[in-house]
Amino acid sequence: MATLQDIGVSALINLFGAFMFLIAFAVLRIQPINDRVYFPKWYLSGDRNSPRRSDGNLVGKFVNLNYKTYFTFLNWMPQAMKMSEAEIIRHAGLDSAIFLRIYTLGLKIFVPAMILALVVLVPVNVSSGTLFFLKKELVVSDIDKLSISNVQPKSSKFFFHIGVEYLFTLWACFMLYREYNNVAIMRLQYLASQRRRPEQFTVVVRNVPDIPGHSVPDTVDQFFKTNHPEHYLCHQAVYNANKYAKLVKQRERLQNWFDYYVLKHQRNPHKKPTCRTGFLGLWGNKVDSIEYYQQQIRDFDHTMSLERQKVLKDSKLMLPVAFVSFDSRWGASVCAQTQQSKNPTLWLTSSAPEPRDIYWQNLAIPFISLTIRKLVIGVSVFALVFFYMIPIAFVQSLANLEGLDRVAPFLRPITRLDFIKSFLQGFLPGLALKIFLWILPTVLLIMSKIEGYIALSTLERRAAAKYYYFMLVNVFLGSIIAGTAFEQLDSFLHQSPSQIPRTIGVSIPMKATFFITYIMVDGWAGIAGEILRLKPLVIFHLKNTFLVKTERDRERAMDPGFVDFKETIPSLQLYFLLGIVYAVVTPILLPFICIFFAFAYLVYRHQIINVYNQQYESCGAFWPHVHGRIIASLLISQLLLMGLLTSKKAADSTPLLIILPILTLAFHKYCKHRFEPAFRQYPLEEAMAKDKLEKETEPELNMKADLADAYLHPIFLSFDQELDEEEEKERHREKEIPEVRVDKHETRSSSPVTELGTPSYHNQVYNSSSPSSHYASAYEQSSYHYEAHRYEEHEYRYN
Amino acid sequence: MATLQDIGVSALINLFGAFMFLIAFAVLRIQPINDRVYFPKWYLSGDRNSPRRSDGNLVGKFVNLNYKTYFTFLNWMPQAMKMSEAEIIRHAGLDSAIFLRIYTLGLKIFVPAMILALVVLVPVNVSSGTLFFLKKELVVSDIDKLSISNVQPKSSKFFFHIGVEYLFTLWACFMLYREYNNVAIMRLQYLASQRRRPEQFTVVVRNVPDIPGHSVPDTVDQFFKTNHPEHYLCHQAVYNANKYAKLVKQRERLQNWFDYYVLKHQRNPHKKPTCRTGFLGLWGNKVDSIEYYQQQIRDFDHTMSLERQKVLKDSKLMLPVAFVSFDSRWGASVCAQTQQSKNPTLWLTSSAPEPRDIYWQNLAIPFISLTIRKLVIGVSVFALVFFYMIPIAFVQSLANLEGLDRVAPFLRPITRLDFIKSFLQGFLPGLALKIFLWILPTVLLIMSKIEGYIALSTLERRAAAKYYYFMLVNVFLGSIIAGTAFEQLDSFLHQSPSQIPRTIGVSIPMKATFFITYIMVDGWAGIAGEILRLKPLVIFHLKNTFLVKTERDRERAMDPGFVDFKETIPSLQLYFLLGIVYAVVTPILLPFICIFFAFAYLVYRHQIINVYNQQYESCGAFWPHVHGRIIASLLISQLLLMGLLTSKKAADSTPLLIILPILTLAFHKYCKHRFEPAFRQYPLEEAMAKDKLEKETEPELNMKADLADAYLHPIFLSFDQELDEEEEKERHREKEIPEVRVDKHETRSSSPVTELGTPSYHNQVYNSSSPSSHYASAYEQSSYHYEAHRYEEHEYRYN
Repeated sequence: MATLQDIGVSALINLFGAFMFLIAFAVLRIQPINDRVYFPKWYLSGDRNSPRRSDGNLVGKFVNLNYKTYFTFLNWMPQAMKMSEAEIIRHAGLDSAIFLRIYTLGLKIFVPAMILALVVLVPVNVSSGTLFFLKKELVVSDIDKLSISNVQPKSSKFFFHIGVEYLFTLWACFMLYREYNNVAIMRLQYLASQRRRPEQFTVVVRNVPDIPGHSVPDTVDQFFKTNHPEHYLCHQAVYNANKYAKLVKQRERLQNWFDYYVLKHQRNPHKKPTCRTGFLGLWGNKVDSIEYYQQQIRDFDHTMSLERQKVLKDSKLMLPVAFVSFDSRWGASVCAQTQQSKNPTLWLTSSAPEPRDIYWQNLAIPFISLTIRKLVIGVSVFALVFFYMIPIAFVQSLANLEGLDRVAPFLRPITRLDFIKSFLQGFLPGLALKIFLWILPTVLLIMSKIEGYIALSTLERRAAAKYYYFMLVNVFLGSIIAGTAFEQLDSFLHQSPSQIPRTIGVSIPMKATFFITYIMVDGWAGIAGEILRLKPLVIFHLKNTFLVKTERDRERAMDPGFVDFKETIPSLQLYFLLGIVYAVVTPILLPFICIFFAFAYLVYRHQIINVYNQQYESCGAFWPHVHGRIIASLLISQLLLMGLLTSKKAADSTPLLIILPILTLAFHKYCKHRFEPAFRQYPLEEAMAKDKLEKETEPELNMKADLADAYLHPIFLSFDQELDEEEEKERHREKEIPEVRVDKHETRSSSPVTELGTPSYHNQVYNSSSPSSHYASAYEQSSYHYEAHRYEEHEYRYN
Repeated sequence: MATLQDIGVSALINLFGAFMFLIAFAVLRIQPINDRVYFPKWYLSGDRNSPRRSDGNLVGKFVNLNYKTYFTFLNWMPQAMKMSEAEIIRHAGLDSAIFLRIYTLGLKIFVPAMILALVVLVPVNVSSGTLFFLKKELVVSDIDKLSISNVQPKSSKFFFHIGVEYLFTLWACFMLYREYNNVAIMRLQYLASQRRRPEQFTVVVRNVPDIPGHSVPDTVDQFFKTNHPEHYLCHQAVYNANKYAKLVKQRERLQNWFDYYVLKHQRNPHKKPTCRTGFLGLWGNKVDSIEYYQQQIRDFDHTMSLERQKVLKDSKLMLPVAFVSFDSRWGASVCAQTQQSKNPTLWLTSSAPEPRDIYWQNLAIPFISLTIRKLVIGVSVFALVFFYMIPIAFVQSLANLEGLDRVAPFLRPITRLDFIKSFLQGFLPGLALKIFLWILPTVLLIMSKIEGYIALSTLERRAAAKYYYFMLVNVFLGSIIAGTAFEQLDSFLHQSPSQIPRTIGVSIPMKATFFITYIMVDGWAGIAGEILRLKPLVIFHLKNTFLVKTERDRERAMDPGFVDFKETIPSLQLYFLLGIVYAVVTPILLPFICIFFAFAYLVYRHQIINVYNQQYESCGAFWPHVHGRIIASLLISQLLLMGLLTSKKAADSTPLLIILPILTLAFHKYCKHRFEPAFRQYPLEEAMAKDKLEKETEPELNMKADLADAYLHPIFLSFDQELDEEEEKERHREKEIPEVRVDKHETRSSSPVTELGTPSYHNQVYNSSSPSSHYASAYEQSSYHYEAHRYEEHEYRYN
């Protein structure tokens, strides 16, 4: 048990650690060579093409020599706060803006709660010292003097705690309601303000029935012409293009080599680059590389176009899935919300996710296997949460020195060395656990993929839910009650339901120190590590030094990353849980939580503005989960407080708490009714209003052409795209213009396909297009471009 | 503990009781005087106007003198089986036909299970006699020798039981699947075969927002013209007509008196009937009754038409609810299934129930109060289920002799009599409980009404769910574990979750005798009592003797009743639970269950054909609940068997059972996906097909006129109706035609309002219109009429 001093020391160490990270970040980020690591978002949005330099010499290209900038090393904080929320939405999308609101919600809930708890509860707890009398029996820390443990059993002072719990719940619910309302309004406004996009007019139809003698497109066409005669426009079939996708990858590799040799030749025009045609270029005939690869690519393109034709024409490769487009938002919204067939497992319609959000592999899963998949994954997640220690213990039992000796006896002389022996002894068993925890989110994502969801955003939300359960059981409960989750499960099965909250409730105040340390290590230092981006920094420089051959490679080496909702949101929910549970029990924990929320808010704001590039836009579809889990945390805290008070024999006051969970649940139900439909369905009123407005402003509009290729599998599009680029490049080369890199935005905005935002595909393939371009029509895009140019000019003048 | 002989004696007694009921029924039903009690359905459907008589004399009018008919007293059984299912659907509606399928489902599940269990399990149980050794410690009945209790702990014979449980579950699931499929198809076919009815084109809209300066009709009109421009037709506002409803009742009373005096005058034309105008007709001036009431009714009609104008015009009495009609089923189905407004608490649409199914009082409940109402009722039901003994014990403590003495000391001389004393002592405490159990279904219905559902069918389903919980806890669990539900709850809260199934599981085999007796008393004898209709019989004759003044009164005294879903379905589900739980534990219970199902099937088939007149048609909307609760019973039985086997230390075999509940749950989820939407939503494909067909057959159709008054509050309609009838009667009287009774069918089918089935209202008011008329258009109705006339002619000739 830690004293207040211990906590203080720990806080200092962690603060120092966080501080060191921040210093490192401040120094590294102003080096031009790191510019693509710390400001990739601006590259992607087209506002920046090369690092800002202080002067033109060679050293200045890599190192910042302007000593003045070193003194203002914390100026990223006010910079991060400068951008308004509306600007963030425009710059990084609604998801990011709503994600930041989780942090402000944390502050709004916990800062007043902290003040209340510190002013009311800490004096109450300190003034009634039971623990002083018991000192000899129990090990009591200073922290416990400030916590509820210090209050004597049967004391009437527990009314204070119950009062504060009531006030706190009311306040939290009030803030939750306001925030849910705000987010719902933001979402609807965002949807209303969006320009025409394919997903607004499109519905994804799954389980198209197989009618003998009819192809899938015929069946779909006939069905929707019959049942939605007034609004049905066209549809797009979905192909099983796994083989073709492989070819696309191979061609990309060839293209890279070709680019590499062209670049090499340009740098050294006197020497023609050559290579060998044999295995790995080690033997075979020596040939002119450029010509060789050019020929190879041409051959390959021929094979690919054949394969492409095959995929598009072979009806066996056609999946029973289609993207059906309507001539109005109203028609699409109606089709998505209604049941089509009398067999409810056929013609399953739902709003189409945006094209870049689709997880194509899952489109083909038949309905009946979905139930089985969900069942299997449900059981697996349960097993994973409660029994994950079993395989790890097994691996650990193998991965010790004896095991190593048996498997690799020749290593024995080395493993006998004392230093290495003790290192391995300490290191190996932990390794398995660490590897497991590291890959856990990925494993959970794969599990969600097996469940068969067709949108990346849904997949991430499902993975986040699983991760939350894991953390709740293994981090929260696992830390409070010693022992593995499996042991807990076993003991819970053999305890009475009224005993469980008591068991947990009693040990809660004792674990406050642990969680304070956890908040500082995982929260404070972890967030500071987030802003430093050590991993992307190292990887970028490694790639830059060893692998980057072409400009495109450099672009690809630049990894902006994204807010990883499936990891960050569950962690955040854990902090909410900690704050809510300890608010009344050990209020001294709240300042640590508040500092975490404030600091993380700043860091993520900075990162969202300068670094991250979201993969998709779900318009805050995760908020109902955030809301729901905060409500769950409130319920858990009420239950545990009840258990704690029962163990304190506060029979007078405990019954007062019974009403609270019921009210909380009622509040949750109300919110669900009131707000959740806004996150699930597109109301007809909105759809109709938008349709009308559009018809008035653009009365002659060829929707069909716009929607024709919107939902083609990205690999087909990217192939077209590359062919286009290729031709353009050839033309450039013929004209002997030295700049090889083609401004993709221009090519795109001139192509008719992009008018409805399709360049977004290339995002997945290249990570290079602007995210805002997805929301902008060709017109907006070019205006963005104009602004981007102005920005660059401005920056150059500034430097 | 009963021996097999005891059970046999009990069975004989109950069989004898049931037999006596049947004999009584067979004798009573062929008496002409009881014709309206045992064949009301035929009167209502218009196929019969007066009892079939064996001869024309006065005695024959009341008593059946044809001695031959007494010998064929069981011929109702084959008669009941004669009608095919399709005919039953046409005759009594789909609900009744599907209700009968519950019984056949019971037979289909339990008869093979019984054979399997008797052939496999009974020999296994008998052959391994542990209980013989323990005889001195335990009281063992003969029944227990046939049950699982007889198998030694740790025996490997438990594999037989687990195998049978697996087979049984598989078989039950297979039958459930087939039956769900059949019922879903029947429902869709029924919906498809229905002729045009207002609810197919109508959507009920709740929570119409209050826009200042706009009346509700204006708001509704504008909203739907904007958002459903292609299909919106018209709408009907809903008025708060409680005051008017009172006036309607008063007028009905006046009308009855008027009819009475007219009849009296006709019977005795020489004496003008007179009455006094004062209080209760006891004093005041003597006046000519007929003239007096005629005048009174005229005055009243004036007041009523004023009030009616007021209700229809005062915008304050207009509720924020409307019935919105569309020009096609497609339009209505789309509107019902979609979200209209961006505020999901406004413009709540759902398919309109049929007009006679609407519970008008609940239409005005605002959205926010619904959540609160549901919460309050949820808590109340929980309290009712678990704590219902508390108020009853309180009442019981008052209602003893001492209490009676205190309240009414003057009764003391009587209560001191030994005979009366012991009677009261034994009777009074039980009285409170009996009254409670008797009014319980009504109380639960009222609770459901408070929850705010707007359809009678939904109200009944909700009440049935509550009744099921009550029976599950208080009859099933309460009988297995002694003690009140509250004591059980308390003990469960203090037991570990793994202990609970064990506690219950162990006592299950011991209670088999009790439940066998329960099945015989409540099931066999109860069902035989159902066919006897003792209560309606007595009440009909009492009313007929003392109250019936007019023909209309006699019609009203005829109470056909209806299948009371809210009571019968939960009881049935309890029998399913008993059968499923005991199938493996004490298989000897199964024959009793099977006899119950077979007998009840016959009885209800007879009653549905000859007696009951359903209040509404929900097209089998209760089936998902039936299915769900049988699945729940399977889960309960698996859990209890697991507990029982654990207590038998069958560690080898018990783990095999764990997979079964998971599979059962998966099956349930699949069925839910596969079939439930058919019971909730009207698929667009069906709607469109029906629309097209109709457009082809009836291209020129004035939908608007048909729908105009379909959803007017029934009291407005009945008033119009009575006015019409009144006029007609006057005309009749003027022409001095002796027949006063007006054939209502003709008036109705000639009025334009009825074309879409609106006479159904009168059903509630008069219980006099034909149920099939609701499904028939004017054309069908008139053809029915024709048949009815033929029937009447036939009957007259016969007599």
